[in-house]
Amino acid sequence: MAEAATARRSRITPEREAELYAAVLDLLREVGYEALTMDAIAARTRSSKATLYRQWGSKPELIARALRHNKPVSIEDIDTGSLRGDFHATMARSDDCQMERDAALMRGLFHAVHDNPELHQAMRQLLIEPEITGLNTMLRRAVDRGEVDADNPALDYVIHMLVGGFVARDLIEDRTVDRAFLASYVDAVILPALGV
Amino acid sequence: MAEAATARRSRITPEREAELYAAVLDLLREVGYEALTMDAIAARTRSSKATLYRQWGSKPELIARALRHNKPVSIEDIDTGSLRGDFHATMARSDDCQMERDAALMRGLFHAVHDNPELHQAMRQLLIEPEITGLNTMLRRAVDRGEVDADNPALDYVIHMLVGGFVARDLIEDRTVDRAFLASYVDAVILPALGV
Repeated sequence: MAEAATARRSRITPEREAELYAAVLDLLREVGYEALTMDAIAARTRSSKATLYRQWGSKPELIARALRHNKPVSIEDIDTGSLRGDFHATMARSDDCQMERDAALMRGLFHAVHDNPELHQAMRQLLIEPEITGLNTMLRRAVDRGEVDADNPALDYVIHMLVGGFVARDLIEDRTVDRAFLASYVDAVILPALGV
Repeated sequence: MAEAATARRSRITPEREAELYAAVLDLLREVGYEALTMDAIAARTRSSKATLYRQWGSKPELIARALRHNKPVSIEDIDTGSLRGDFHATMARSDDCQMERDAALMRGLFHAVHDNPELHQAMRQLLIEPEITGLNTMLRRAVDRGEVDADNPALDYVIHMLVGGFVARDLIEDRTVDRAFLASYVDAVILPALGV
């Protein structure tokens, strides 16, 4: 699915693609996943529905790709020379204002995946798995540098720790994740668990 | 709200209360939060709706109390003499089968709180806050025993780590939390972050 979509998408310019993804995320914030139609996306972006389906295959896939495009820097491209530096640079990819906007968006989407296995699958394949791959690259570099023991069992649970930071801050503390919280969480939890 | 409900509830026997809570959770598993009505609970438990409202005030409160009652042992009553022992005993409160059933239930409810601030409030007050209080009691004992430094910054984030274990296992790995996973997560993540 990913390769076919890439081939299809290559027919439009990167600028047009970025413009279209921005419009999709704006609409998603305005009306939510359920109410968002391919018709509305076509109207807002002055595209034909046929073009949207040809280029992206489905609404879940288009939305997952728009979310992925919204991440300005891939984790694997962050390489500061230390694991702590890499984590802090990763957390600094978004400013607090953007993080608050994204948190609202993700809350709505995690709500929607409950009823939409196709959206869950697209988010998993196009958004979550690339982030996990990037995270694992970052962790492997730290192991190669000797910062983390190759057999440290917490290496398998970094994604769990990260998800916990985001979800518990939101659900239990009823506060939005910001950079100060994430920086403190990385230093207090993730690095000590990894023995750094 | 909690005190008033306790006073009201004391008019029925503990056995009757347990029976009623079990029926509420059965119904909740069968139909989900939205479709669950006080009429259905009244019919299933052979109570009058007036009695239900008098004793529990509202559907969210009744459900939160039923969930709370479902936790057989309060965390603060677990006191094995070591933090590792306490965590492992806490994780062993439910068997794998019960954990899988509860995971499905909680998934549905976390979905429902998105649209129901009153349910979110009742779950927070009657279910989440008592668990956090119990957890903090357990952690304070570990600090008093000298197992954890009083100023270890991870003490503020134990709930985040725990939530991450549950949510990421479910959402990212698409696997149900079981006792083996939780035991390994406690040993790999939570205890090292706390310096134990």
